[in-house]
Amino acid sequence: MTNAPASDPFGDPGRDPLLAALRSVVGPTHLLTDPDLRAPYETDWTRRFHGHARCVVRPGTTAEVVAVLQHCTEHGADIVTQGGNTGLVGAGVPRSSSRNSSRSGSQGIAQAGEVLLSLARLDHIGPIDTDHGEVTVGAGATLAAVRAAVTPHGWDVGVDLASRDSATIGGMVATNAGGAHLLRYGPMVGQVLGLEAVRVDGAVISRVPALRKDNSGYRVAGLLAGSEGTLAVITQVQLALVPLIAERCVALVGLDDLRDALRLLGRLRRELPSLLAAEVCFADGIDLVCAYAGLSWPIQRSPVVLLLECGDASRSAAQVLDELGMILDTASAVRASAVANDAAGAERLWQYRDRHTEAISSLGIPHKLDVTIPFDALAAFPDQVQATIRAIAPDARVVLFGHLGDGNLHVNILGLAPDDDTVDEAVLRFVAELGGSISAEHGIGVAKREFLTLVRTPDELDTMRALKTALDPGWRLNPGVLLTPPDSRR
Amino acid sequence: MTNAPASDPFGDPGRDPLLAALRSVVGPTHLLTDPDLRAPYETDWTRRFHGHARCVVRPGTTAEVVAVLQHCTEHGADIVTQGGNTGLVGAGVPRSSSRNSSRSGSQGIAQAGEVLLSLARLDHIGPIDTDHGEVTVGAGATLAAVRAAVTPHGWDVGVDLASRDSATIGGMVATNAGGAHLLRYGPMVGQVLGLEAVRVDGAVISRVPALRKDNSGYRVAGLLAGSEGTLAVITQVQLALVPLIAERCVALVGLDDLRDALRLLGRLRRELPSLLAAEVCFADGIDLVCAYAGLSWPIQRSPVVLLLECGDASRSAAQVLDELGMILDTASAVRASAVANDAAGAERLWQYRDRHTEAISSLGIPHKLDVTIPFDALAAFPDQVQATIRAIAPDARVVLFGHLGDGNLHVNILGLAPDDDTVDEAVLRFVAELGGSISAEHGIGVAKREFLTLVRTPDELDTMRALKTALDPGWRLNPGVLLTPPDSRR
Repeated sequence: MTNAPASDPFGDPGRDPLLAALRSVVGPTHLLTDPDLRAPYETDWTRRFHGHARCVVRPGTTAEVVAVLQHCTEHGADIVTQGGNTGLVGAGVPRSSSRNSSRSGSQGIAQAGEVLLSLARLDHIGPIDTDHGEVTVGAGATLAAVRAAVTPHGWDVGVDLASRDSATIGGMVATNAGGAHLLRYGPMVGQVLGLEAVRVDGAVISRVPALRKDNSGYRVAGLLAGSEGTLAVITQVQLALVPLIAERCVALVGLDDLRDALRLLGRLRRELPSLLAAEVCFADGIDLVCAYAGLSWPIQRSPVVLLLECGDASRSAAQVLDELGMILDTASAVRASAVANDAAGAERLWQYRDRHTEAISSLGIPHKLDVTIPFDALAAFPDQVQATIRAIAPDARVVLFGHLGDGNLHVNILGLAPDDDTVDEAVLRFVAELGGSISAEHGIGVAKREFLTLVRTPDELDTMRALKTALDPGWRLNPGVLLTPPDSRR
Repeated sequence: MTNAPASDPFGDPGRDPLLAALRSVVGPTHLLTDPDLRAPYETDWTRRFHGHARCVVRPGTTAEVVAVLQHCTEHGADIVTQGGNTGLVGAGVPRSSSRNSSRSGSQGIAQAGEVLLSLARLDHIGPIDTDHGEVTVGAGATLAAVRAAVTPHGWDVGVDLASRDSATIGGMVATNAGGAHLLRYGPMVGQVLGLEAVRVDGAVISRVPALRKDNSGYRVAGLLAGSEGTLAVITQVQLALVPLIAERCVALVGLDDLRDALRLLGRLRRELPSLLAAEVCFADGIDLVCAYAGLSWPIQRSPVVLLLECGDASRSAAQVLDELGMILDTASAVRASAVANDAAGAERLWQYRDRHTEAISSLGIPHKLDVTIPFDALAAFPDQVQATIRAIAPDARVVLFGHLGDGNLHVNILGLAPDDDTVDEAVLRFVAELGGSISAEHGIGVAKREFLTLVRTPDELDTMRALKTALDPGWRLNPGVLLTPPDSRR
């Protein structure tokens, strides 16, 4: 803070009355104004999104969150809420480009910098209801910490992500996180029994403890899930847990095309209730993983590779594998398969899917698009999207993989200039024409905000703006995320 | 309409310009102004709630719904939306008490009578995605009709209700219906992939077809579910189906007390993924059913009787029964049990639970309360609620039964005057003190609106009002349902 120019009171608690007020709420330890201390909060983990925060404030209780938000409202400050900072669309870091600009900038955000509200200290876990499979946690508790607390009691969280060590439950609800097990348990909103959140004016809405069945008023929790921190600040979450599955079996299945894969998936959905994941890769992606990781194909090389994971709390991996095997044995489209019913074998097969990301990154920084395609348009999509991309960038390399059970493909494009969005836009336009989603699980954030009109009608956007204005009349929570602020805030 | 007094233009399309406009939208056949034709729509099936409708309008398409709402908005008319008219809290019938009163009455509703918007004609079913288990239906399609359409393809709807022949999918979403299988599949909102709804001003929000995974903007569908027709008119619903379970097994289990029942339930939740329902009855209720229906106890008489239903798409009833039997055999709290693994046997055991409602009604018209109790307060609740009731009405007879898996008990009280809510209020106050819900699955409607403050804070109610105002600024959709209209509308 000693770096602040004499003409700029922002960032100096001695001269900035908001910072003095926030310091009185959280104490000097948890109000970060020093640029070095702020830095880790100001840049997202992809290093693509970054901005200037007026300060970082780290409340330790819901009451402190209420007081922080009330002071920010009083002083007209914008707020960015941050969980584990593992998002992919820039929704959790400041957007202000300079601490010294005037407030009337052109970015729709306060140029003094937003107050960055870190919920990391709201990391309490419990109570756990071991009979009914419920746990209440602070928004800042990481997924890994929650899983470690509940698995000894025979329960687990229905959503799992690779970023489990840093992703927080509050952030996962705010972004309605997906993951590989969505086809069995649904997205994050499906795990939420209840939540506690604070409006920008400090009003506490929704509640924990919540109940399994409660039709007494609007389901505000259902609206806050996936709203990317723009409607209220989630402070506590009560999760419905799923029975812990101790043993799983995994199969890699080689097929001729996506049509066969979808047909097989349809049969599995009906006949195999133990199905946990149905992931899809393609021959070129598996080739890439093999070259990168020094592996060889675990099955006969096939155009489409389906990874299936199955398990049930009550049954052994061998029992589940018997059921899966019976279906695969009678499915004529299956060209080749490899199965595993122990942890080491499962991990060995999973790596052909999981190591796609690092193998792709070893070739350069890809443009990553995260799209859902309607099932009836999915089979033709890989060829079509390749053609769409090559029409603009003939030398681009495209690698697809994703969650077939949800129609969700991750489109990775190598060989493009980092800031050239021409190809991205062409792909998203094509996806929108097909009736798909331009963001399956990553959210809109600032990265895809300009593309939202491709998939949402003016009436829908108008409705979202009305809801935003109802809960946050000054548009101060995560300004610029998801929706373009009104003219008065630009 | 020939009955209309000369001084009253309402109800006469020749003199009421709104009715003329609505007739031009739906045609004369589907605009009902004759009192005899309106009557079935003006009274709910419990005959407890009734009112006067300015007219009944039956649009056949979403475009017609849009036009109807636009005309109503233009003419400042209030609207009541009706599905199957099987609700229990008066949310689907008019509230106006007289057609001839002036608009400035004291009920918060237009005294000319609301426009009753029946969605019965929006009853299309399909397309059905047989591979992925999805179906799109009109809001007016009945649950029974949808089930009949999807079960031949190996799929089913995750929520089932006794009123399946008349309850509509739109109404089930608007009230977030529950039912006996909620512990397995969740409530109605959990079955919704997407929906189409129309705002009071005619704007169409949300969309079908929807996608399995789509984080592109606010989840408006999650807010509309359970909002009891007060935020928008649901016109189409895309459902995620569940695999059809062809064979089920049912067990009646006798236990000493609710604590043992809850402990057994906890074990079943973890170890028996095939569990579909866990219903609870008590000895006096079973006695009543036996006396009413000429049955005898199917197991040794026990204070608490748990009905368990299990099934999986992939397994026979005998296989599932084996797994259930292993758990029951090793559960020391089980005093007695009877099991069935064929349809006739299952139906025989289910009737001890299902016939509670008619057995109770055979003794008089009960006051019915539908409450959820937190699991940790549930075991003590039956004795406590009896004491609460008897302190006011010493001669009242109380019969409890319900959905143990959800903590949801139906409290039936016999021997009270029909309009005396003293006991109801005392029970709901006690439930609220325990942290329970005053409406587990029936909703708030007009019946419990005055009690909503028992379980919702001023901040929560303020948030609900803000959301209501955002989507329906004039408070014209289902006025008086769920929330008390603002002073300007009283």
